[in-house]
Amino acid sequence: MKKDKLPAVLICNEVNVRYLTGFTGDSSWLLLTADREVILSDGRFTTQLEEECPDIPMAIRPVQQTLLQLAAEQIRGLSVSVCGFEATAISYDVATHLEEAVDTPDLIPVKGLVEPLRAIKDPDEIREIREAIRQAEKGFDYLKASLTAEMTELTASFALEEGMRRFGAICTGFDSIIAVGERAALPHARPGLSRCDQAPFLLVDWGARTAGGYVSDLTRMIITGSISSKLQRLYEVVKKSQQAAIEKIRPGVAATEVDRAARVVMEQHGVADHFNHGLGHGFGLQVHESTRLSPNSADVLSPGMVITVEPGVYYPGWGGIRLEDDILVTRDGHEVLSSLPRELESHCLRW
Amino acid sequence: MKKDKLPAVLICNEVNVRYLTGFTGDSSWLLLTADREVILSDGRFTTQLEEECPDIPMAIRPVQQTLLQLAAEQIRGLSVSVCGFEATAISYDVATHLEEAVDTPDLIPVKGLVEPLRAIKDPDEIREIREAIRQAEKGFDYLKASLTAEMTELTASFALEEGMRRFGAICTGFDSIIAVGERAALPHARPGLSRCDQAPFLLVDWGARTAGGYVSDLTRMIITGSISSKLQRLYEVVKKSQQAAIEKIRPGVAATEVDRAARVVMEQHGVADHFNHGLGHGFGLQVHESTRLSPNSADVLSPGMVITVEPGVYYPGWGGIRLEDDILVTRDGHEVLSSLPRELESHCLRW
Repeated sequence: MKKDKLPAVLICNEVNVRYLTGFTGDSSWLLLTADREVILSDGRFTTQLEEECPDIPMAIRPVQQTLLQLAAEQIRGLSVSVCGFEATAISYDVATHLEEAVDTPDLIPVKGLVEPLRAIKDPDEIREIREAIRQAEKGFDYLKASLTAEMTELTASFALEEGMRRFGAICTGFDSIIAVGERAALPHARPGLSRCDQAPFLLVDWGARTAGGYVSDLTRMIITGSISSKLQRLYEVVKKSQQAAIEKIRPGVAATEVDRAARVVMEQHGVADHFNHGLGHGFGLQVHESTRLSPNSADVLSPGMVITVEPGVYYPGWGGIRLEDDILVTRDGHEVLSSLPRELESHCLRW
Repeated sequence: MKKDKLPAVLICNEVNVRYLTGFTGDSSWLLLTADREVILSDGRFTTQLEEECPDIPMAIRPVQQTLLQLAAEQIRGLSVSVCGFEATAISYDVATHLEEAVDTPDLIPVKGLVEPLRAIKDPDEIREIREAIRQAEKGFDYLKASLTAEMTELTASFALEEGMRRFGAICTGFDSIIAVGERAALPHARPGLSRCDQAPFLLVDWGARTAGGYVSDLTRMIITGSISSKLQRLYEVVKKSQQAAIEKIRPGVAATEVDRAARVVMEQHGVADHFNHGLGHGFGLQVHESTRLSPNSADVLSPGMVITVEPGVYYPGWGGIRLEDDILVTRDGHEVLSSLPRELESHCLRW
């Protein structure tokens, strides 16, 4: 705020509100000035606010008042010339009505105020992420140990979630992707009714969420049939592509450079056209956070960032292969936080 | 669009995109003109789009292009004077960048274009909602049948979800609320580590999501100890309040009138100050949709609307009581779609 010469700012993104205050509810905004902070909320959350952030004053709107009206009232009451608001967190409609309702001081759209803070994880956050990875990995082992030929993608996703919960996860970090055979050609496939023995492999993209709210994000292939030469060849290309990208990771490196390293390997093997998404992303309280590894990213890596590296190749009608690990940018390089083996042979099952 | 004299509109809300096209992915917009429609998406969804909405043309952005850039390109290519965009579905930041990138035609913020269509459920949608209610109710019976004194709110929520899945639910309709004793004073409590035998009652607010994407939303109290006179008295007030509101439901009635009917009963019993939220809301593909039953709602009921009626009273340090059912507005009145008994005695358990 100092750097941007902002005397006041309205934090509207509920994950940012949580990050700054510890409050885990929703529908609440945080109004910050140099010497004051107040959470704007409603009666459903009074008790929860007292429990979760007892030191932060709150303004509770009556049932008849909207959050926007309460915010306008509070902002008008500030003796400041301008007030920022998070322009990526509220809709065009809410923002324009807020501007009307406030009148003075002027409202200024701001973005990227809290996200850069969130992108750099502190030791407590890294501990939470390690725990989310442990829960996810134990859950994956549980899935492998309980998978039957008769299970569908959907029932397999239930077993995976049950496994993660056994090891302390509150829930999944995001909707699990379990895709059998050709369904793995859809990078964002939703678990459906395809049986697990319908093809010789399945793709699993999953993560856990800890009680503290942090997630993990991993992808592995499970092989349940014979390994065709196509599968073997493509898997090795993806693994090599991932490894080349991971080796680039250290502070000061451009995100595009890491992305490029993965694509170069794909190009060398003539499969670059089949890699149709970005290479990775930051994560933490959300599964997708700032820091993007992609051809058009402007990000530069810094110590404390935690990112995924997840190259994949997709062939409609045949299937897809993706491999995803979670990497911490350290002061002098990187640490691969996830520990599941990356060899195809390590994830072969027999019915 | 005709009524608003809009020659083109960009649908940005992904639930609206799903409602209009059948596409269940995300990160995709729909551009509509009088005689043309095109889905704007990316390579992750090509196969899924071909499967889910084969008749709708698609424009797939390359990895280097953003969705905003693709939309601007497509909108510039239209021979129209203005193009609407969903002002509640994209952030202020995205909207202002889109306006810059498009230049001509003029972009006009619109809202409430698709939501009024979604508010009125057709017979297929009502069938899906009935199914979501059945799954939720069977799941609740399963929870009651498997609840032990040692279970925590969290493990009870897992059992509830497992129960709903056994009866066909894909997942929960939203994060279940299970709150033991005084934790029920938080209308939006998250399941935690309180044991189920820590207090004589727990509040359960839950719903299922069907494979077709529709949800249900219910609340019941489970009594696990002796019924105090305070619990008995407050429960009867809440039940009476709910009944008074439900009886008001028929086409043409203002949402405020239904909300008022519930509050009048609360006032007569001197507990109105403890009812600190709106009375109910529409639901369907989302758990909160348009049609709000609250003191400041402008909505009027119409046949085909499906809404919750969920009065509650909350006492910090003691607990809370809420009762929630799902109601269809019919041509000549209403139908209560949910069927779990509302008598306190019906939900008494012994360990």
